[in-house]
Amino acid sequence: MLSRRHPQLNRHGELVHLLGIEGLPRAVLTQILDTASTFLSVNERDVKKVPLLRGKSVFNLFFENSTRTRTTFEIAAKRLSADVLNLDIARSSTAKGESLLDTIANLSAMHADMFVVRHAESGAPFLIAQHCAPHVHVINAGDGRHAHPTQGLLDMYTIRHYKGGFSNLTVAIVGDIVHSRVARSDIHALTTLGAAEVRAVGPKTLVPADLREMGVRVCHDMAEGMRDADVIITLRLQNERMSGAMLPSAAEFAMNYGLTPEKLALAKPDAIVMHPGPINRGVEIDSRVADGTQSVILPQVTFGIAVRMAVMSIIAGNEA
Amino acid sequence: MLSRRHPQLNRHGELVHLLGIEGLPRAVLTQILDTASTFLSVNERDVKKVPLLRGKSVFNLFFENSTRTRTTFEIAAKRLSADVLNLDIARSSTAKGESLLDTIANLSAMHADMFVVRHAESGAPFLIAQHCAPHVHVINAGDGRHAHPTQGLLDMYTIRHYKGGFSNLTVAIVGDIVHSRVARSDIHALTTLGAAEVRAVGPKTLVPADLREMGVRVCHDMAEGMRDADVIITLRLQNERMSGAMLPSAAEFAMNYGLTPEKLALAKPDAIVMHPGPINRGVEIDSRVADGTQSVILPQVTFGIAVRMAVMSIIAGNEA
Amino acid sequence: MLSRRHPQLNRHGELVHLLGIEGLPRAVLTQILDTASTFLSVNERDVKKVPLLRGKSVFNLFFENSTRTRTTFEIAAKRLSADVLNLDIARSSTAKGESLLDTIANLSAMHADMFVVRHAESGAPFLIAQHCAPHVHVINAGDGRHAHPTQGLLDMYTIRHYKGGFSNLTVAIVGDIVHSRVARSDIHALTTLGAAEVRAVGPKTLVPADLREMGVRVCHDMAEGMRDADVIITLRLQNERMSGAMLPSAAEFAMNYGLTPEKLALAKPDAIVMHPGPINRGVEIDSRVADGTQSVILPQVTFGIAVRMAVMSIIAGNEA
Repeated sequence: MLSRRHPQLNRHGELVHLLGIEGLPRAVLTQILDTASTFLSVNERDVKKVPLLRGKSVFNLFFENSTRTRTTFEIAAKRLSADVLNLDIARSSTAKGESLLDTIANLSAMHADMFVVRHAESGAPFLIAQHCAPHVHVINAGDGRHAHPTQGLLDMYTIRHYKGGFSNLTVAIVGDIVHSRVARSDIHALTTLGAAEVRAVGPKTLVPADLREMGVRVCHDMAEGMRDADVIITLRLQNERMSGAMLPSAAEFAMNYGLTPEKLALAKPDAIVMHPGPINRGVEIDSRVADGTQSVILPQVTFGIAVRMAVMSIIAGNEA
Repeated sequence: MLSRRHPQLNRHGELVHLLGIEGLPRAVLTQILDTASTFLSVNERDVKKVPLLRGKSVFNLFFENSTRTRTTFEIAAKRLSADVLNLDIARSSTAKGESLLDTIANLSAMHADMFVVRHAESGAPFLIAQHCAPHVHVINAGDGRHAHPTQGLLDMYTIRHYKGGFSNLTVAIVGDIVHSRVARSDIHALTTLGAAEVRAVGPKTLVPADLREMGVRVCHDMAEGMRDADVIITLRLQNERMSGAMLPSAAEFAMNYGLTPEKLALAKPDAIVMHPGPINRGVEIDSRVADGTQSVILPQVTFGIAVRMAVMSIIAGNEA
Repeated sequence: MLSRRHPQLNRHGELVHLLGIEGLPRAVLTQILDTASTFLSVNERDVKKVPLLRGKSVFNLFFENSTRTRTTFEIAAKRLSADVLNLDIARSSTAKGESLLDTIANLSAMHADMFVVRHAESGAPFLIAQHCAPHVHVINAGDGRHAHPTQGLLDMYTIRHYKGGFSNLTVAIVGDIVHSRVARSDIHALTTLGAAEVRAVGPKTLVPADLREMGVRVCHDMAEGMRDADVIITLRLQNERMSGAMLPSAAEFAMNYGLTPEKLALAKPDAIVMHPGPINRGVEIDSRVADGTQSVILPQVTFGIAVRMAVMSIIAGNEA
């Protein structure tokens, strides 16, 4: 069994990288959420800083540009007192033809402590974790369609914060699930944490039937998807990732699956509405819902900083 | 009266945002200048750092690119021990179609403490200040043709430093006034601080007659504008903002309004020469003047850091 | 003699800028290497930080883009507790037509303490050092084909680390020497430190005969160049700097001068192999060599941080 050990965990079962939520034991997820709640208060203090990562060098390696996600990791690292290096990888020596692994070996030799990696290729952070020096920790900040584990974790934090737990919950994930690394991370996390029912809601082109193998209830009918849900996670319609063939039009998608107050009324009265951002107002979510009393979209952002601080401080404390 | 309260001031009349100089009471301007002089010595120390903003997160939101201005705010914030986040907004989710206010709400949710905003649209920082969370402070780092208040303040600091005060002074602002947010901020500041005479000097196309309503003496003749002036503020000829129709040529402008030693000789013998930079040598200012003994262009830059430190530390200490 | 004083040294012979290795006395080079070895341990500590440059402002002025080199200086400065400002010069006011010296005067007026300069023009850092304010120190991070002194110094550190000294060594520099500022810096350093023999190895188009005037043995035959060498410094084939006329093809170069295990076998059995990076695998160096037991390419990177910390801390402590 140990021979197929999970690459994110050391031989004591402690987290040393965060590459994906799939396969992580419930105890590790819970440890992250519990640690995050201690950091939430740090972020509300006047001096938003703790010295846990003082003198550590955190490298943001964004092979795919994402100012917002990069910013959340940069804030988290700085509030832990780390030194943060932002590498504009697209313009650097990778462009000169250097291989990914040579770039990583080089940065490791600078005594990097942590790589936060965003990459258009699924599996790139995994490859880096396999090959980097033992003193380096890797966090996946989104890889292709594969995973976005810190987003998944902050979603779990948000749900636990508002609902107290997972065991009796029905969670509906709505929209472009096939292209969404967020959806994939959420599904793994919800399953591990014991949510009663996870639904994937959307048109056949965006919600593949094989999601059922992950224990998910597939709903192509929005009313069925919403009915009595406790939590609704709307997803960004990734226009930039879709070819026209998969979807007739954004307007048609909005009409059938865009979350309006009317559709939301089918869910439980105290249902919460989430979204990973940035939102397309009037497409996957109506402004009355996004700005309404059931929306917890902005608290998700706040919790996201605390969750990233938690992940960073936990993995920095564990040896490979 | 309170119902039309100035958006930059809280109910105690304290500065909580810096959006423009228009409407700010003289006491607030003087407080900033006095505070800046205490920071001037910090910048000359061996360890150029004070802990006033330790643990605060300052976001540079430059919707319009300006490396130099961004750098001055970044230095000021770091010397106050803040964590600084530079957001390359042009390449971020705004590009993905997110609205300005959604971006701001999102960043506020990360427990930002301060936004330094540069925007091509006049009024954008005002809009942000109106809508951001109450714990966030906004500084306008230049918006369209509207205002550039920290430049205006550093100009006032420079004048006070060399002239001791404002009450007996004749200040000539020369050049492209119609496109200049600096000129607008300077005029408001000089008026509030009680300068004896403010002149706007330049061709009719660049110096609109309605400036007279602001209490300014409009001079289309350079000799008239220079005569017995104590302070001459030359402005950058904003080639990149002008259509050809407004100006025959840079050479013709230089001949008529470019500040040469000969034209400067018409001013008081101890007149000082200022410029917000970057200078166009040989266009609005002759190198013999820019590098001459009456030039205080480089001290302006030095004072600018201290003034920005003053603004940041003052607004961070006041509650909305 | 003092009238032609070296621009990098003050009147006590202490280093105040690092512009090039040419002309630096052996004692200064040795001081840098000795200081670097004390910083090597800092980089291996849990808290990789010393307060030597606390409150100092280090400006990275990269007129030529180089993410990797910029990163090494940024890490070095942050581990010395400096505040680091990265200026994207290509997009800044230089683009608005401001002169190099005006930009420098402006940044000096912000109380900069150090400029790290990369420029496509040979001599640009020298020009800056000549004109900047006396409190500012300049480090050349690569200028045209002229010099790359910190790379030269880290190469010396690496050689001394593995070979104990220089006096009995034969050092072969292989490849595109004519375009290489690294080669030039290495040759000056090796000569000053007393290496027994320095060889320049490569085709006639890339290894000019006038190198002999620098005391270098020119070898157009690879076997002759490798024979009994103690140290082999391979150089990146600068495809982006060459016109097609100078070189038949990368494949032909690789066949004749690419470092394979077979060619390496001609050198001493304990010879070390170096490369400034990023490497072109299969061109100037075979993967079996780059990843082999004689390769010290990654230790070079590690030593590079310590050497840059040494240079920064030494020059910051000396007055012009």
